[in-house]
Amino acid sequence: MVEQEKDAALPAKGNFSEWYNELLRIAEIMDVRYPVKGLYVWHPFGFSIRKNVYSIMRELLDNDHNETLFPLLIPEHEFMKEAEHIKGFEDEVYWVTHGGKDPLEVNLALRPTSETAIYPMYKMWVRSHADLPLKLYQVVNTFRYETKHTRPLIRLREITSFKEAHTVHANWEDAAEQVEEAIRIYQEFYRRLAIPVLPSKRPDWDKFPGADYTIAVDALMPDGKTLQVGTAHHLGSNFAKTFDIKYEDPTGEQVYAHQTCYGISERSIASLVSIHGDDKGLVLPPEVAPVQVVIIPIIFKDGTEVLKECEKVKSTLEEAGIRVTIDASDRRPGAKYYRWEMKGVPIRIEIGPKDLKNNAVIMVFRDSGEKEQVPLNEIKDEVLKRFVTIHANLLAKAETALNNRIFDCVTLDGIQGKLKQGIVRMPWCGKKECGLALEEEIGAGILGIPTGQEGEKSAKCPLCGTDTGTWVYVARTY
Amino acid sequence: MVEQEKDAALPAKGNFSEWYNELLRIAEIMDVRYPVKGLYVWHPFGFSIRKNVYSIMRELLDNDHNETLFPLLIPEHEFMKEAEHIKGFEDEVYWVTHGGKDPLEVNLALRPTSETAIYPMYKMWVRSHADLPLKLYQVVNTFRYETKHTRPLIRLREITSFKEAHTVHANWEDAAEQVEEAIRIYQEFYRRLAIPVLPSKRPDWDKFPGADYTIAVDALMPDGKTLQVGTAHHLGSNFAKTFDIKYEDPTGEQVYAHQTCYGISERSIASLVSIHGDDKGLVLPPEVAPVQVVIIPIIFKDGTEVLKECEKVKSTLEEAGIRVTIDASDRRPGAKYYRWEMKGVPIRIEIGPKDLKNNAVIMVFRDSGEKEQVPLNEIKDEVLKRFVTIHANLLAKAETALNNRIFDCVTLDGIQGKLKQGIVRMPWCGKKECGLALEEEIGAGILGIPTGQEGEKSAKCPLCGTDTGTWVYVARTY
Repeated sequence: MVEQEKDAALPAKGNFSEWYNELLRIAEIMDVRYPVKGLYVWHPFGFSIRKNVYSIMRELLDNDHNETLFPLLIPEHEFMKEAEHIKGFEDEVYWVTHGGKDPLEVNLALRPTSETAIYPMYKMWVRSHADLPLKLYQVVNTFRYETKHTRPLIRLREITSFKEAHTVHANWEDAAEQVEEAIRIYQEFYRRLAIPVLPSKRPDWDKFPGADYTIAVDALMPDGKTLQVGTAHHLGSNFAKTFDIKYEDPTGEQVYAHQTCYGISERSIASLVSIHGDDKGLVLPPEVAPVQVVIIPIIFKDGTEVLKECEKVKSTLEEAGIRVTIDASDRRPGAKYYRWEMKGVPIRIEIGPKDLKNNAVIMVFRDSGEKEQVPLNEIKDEVLKRFVTIHANLLAKAETALNNRIFDCVTLDGIQGKLKQGIVRMPWCGKKECGLALEEEIGAGILGIPTGQEGEKSAKCPLCGTDTGTWVYVARTY
Repeated sequence: MVEQEKDAALPAKGNFSEWYNELLRIAEIMDVRYPVKGLYVWHPFGFSIRKNVYSIMRELLDNDHNETLFPLLIPEHEFMKEAEHIKGFEDEVYWVTHGGKDPLEVNLALRPTSETAIYPMYKMWVRSHADLPLKLYQVVNTFRYETKHTRPLIRLREITSFKEAHTVHANWEDAAEQVEEAIRIYQEFYRRLAIPVLPSKRPDWDKFPGADYTIAVDALMPDGKTLQVGTAHHLGSNFAKTFDIKYEDPTGEQVYAHQTCYGISERSIASLVSIHGDDKGLVLPPEVAPVQVVIIPIIFKDGTEVLKECEKVKSTLEEAGIRVTIDASDRRPGAKYYRWEMKGVPIRIEIGPKDLKNNAVIMVFRDSGEKEQVPLNEIKDEVLKRFVTIHANLLAKAETALNNRIFDCVTLDGIQGKLKQGIVRMPWCGKKECGLALEEEIGAGILGIPTGQEGEKSAKCPLCGTDTGTWVYVARTY
């Protein structure tokens, strides 16, 4: 909120890491100066993006999920019930041990994820096959005691915006279908953010602790690393057995339920900001932009007429449900352009005396930088039309960037060069020892087997030489 | 979700405490069986009420506040900076002491409220008089290690829905004006919930720890106790001095800022549920009802025509933005009536073959129980009109109930009888020793001096006999 700081120059995007940090600061998304490592503060502008992004998520889920809210604190004895789950999380759980000055009788975990908070209740709620499927979700803060380098929106000690869904099904197949449905929902969610994502089945050693398998979606960040931006887990009846979640089937028998869970965090916003942004700052798809249109009055002497027209245009657009701001501040137009480009506003409208004479305005589009003269009576239609094309352009651009950076490699020769640029697709025999050796050798991770993969050409596993029709994504990851 | 449990009978409302607990359960608002004392689970139906209630709050605040989000965890050294504040909270703060198996270098408090999380950032954000006023709010979970009897929505260890606003102003007077504005906002918020509230200035010993003064709003619960459902605090420059929040005034001088904070929690929903509900269950003002209209098809033999008409009515209402459900389940109509009355649905529409012949439907209103025949082509208008009158009726009824239970007493004689029924208004000299002695003697609390009080008749303080024109509210409180 200090002018001289905000107007500091943004590093070029080629310098991704610095660009990212400075963008979050100058565009007022997050403040990283909170006095605990790994905890950050949402600026109102960033929070407004978050609100729009999570509205899309809620819209998609509310179709056949219900929103709910479970407690943050999980008693130690519940948290410690599922052996695999504990192993996965025990090193990164925060523990509440004291209330006031007194030690608690039972230590309480800050949820790193809510299986062990929710499933004791599911045990009570699920009784009959008629209760299934049960599909609930919540948007909550979760906690991980990260020892690695933390980074705003990406690696956090408090994940402030964890959307987690937890579903219960009659059998394994229904749960598997729900995992696929979750991935479809996530793909649609990211399509709305103009972000292409790659779904793949994680290798066994990288699945969710306690799951039968995990399918994740990854986005490709500008620096060539991938960011896991959503996961869906088939829990089988592993947790159902631990938490005794049974239902009466139509024959009257008590059987264990099958479950799934799937999550999205503010990494969705990290990818949104990173993938579309440019050297001038944020570039936001219209649907999630806090300000969708900014109107800049160009005033020479008397601004009365111009400002009146700006207000008229604003009203017209607002009636169509568009989020509009007039920047009538004292700054020079150039400073205003800089500011609103930084904030990623999709369309800027400039209105000056010359334009009024022509019964027109100038429209400038944030994604392409193009300018266009638009007649006054066509402004609303043009804006709405452009919102659609801007979204399509951003998505197409991101898809091209992604596709240009997926490389097929059948040997390890030259793989390092490709991994610096993006994702490598390579044959893998499927054996854990080859997978781990590969990850070790190239210093990158196996993302997984692309979902829906079939009919791929046969090739040799570069580690053991076995013939295989399975190709996997490999990448440097966040 | 087990039918036989849900359909258990609701105790009469006269039996308030049992009625309240059973209502939360049968109407599916909260599940109290979570395995930690004082932590509860929101059922989807309850959460949906919460969503509607907090939408109103956001709408009122977004006018000139910005929404934001600060971390939950507060480092001990920040939390312990403000002496009064510590005294007020140290016995009820939860402490995180371990990450994984290792003790943390700095213990972290779960926010009981966020002054000490937010104000270190305000120190950095506030620089110049041009930055003021700064008005932010967040909706978050906060924690209190309550040793008293806990109760869902009322006395919690995790307050899941704390709306806290924190404002910064140039001087004491501006902050005082903001406290008044906050109380106006809260009164409007509760008016939208059809709940009359009483604002009063809390006595000094009951103000927020670290504040200059506190104004609170109280609602009168059916059992005659009052529930504090919102507070606004003038913080003076107390926290500004502790956290070094200064700004440069127009003359170039560095001066301390003045601050306010004000909060609302899910107690708003406790009062909503309690004040309007009746022996049949919830009664919800239309604006916050998750289901605003339920349509019950009355089917004898072939239901095709009836169901078709139900769908048509539903579409018509949904086009007008109304939340409608058709209950086409197998239950008997009586069971359906019971169920939706329990859920507080404002209007029930019954459509049967006889009604279709008359080109009409039957409407039943939850608040009054009245029935009305409404022509098919007038349904939408009638529903919208009734939403307005239902809200007005609920508010009027609640206002009458409140006004009938405020009693003026000038002596302590007979005060116990009045306090059992509601609120007593009585003269008080203003001296702390008289106030504390009074509270001790009658086993009730001084709420405070009604805001805007002036020109009251002079009377004697019943403790010391001093003449005074000040009258205070006294009540048994939650």
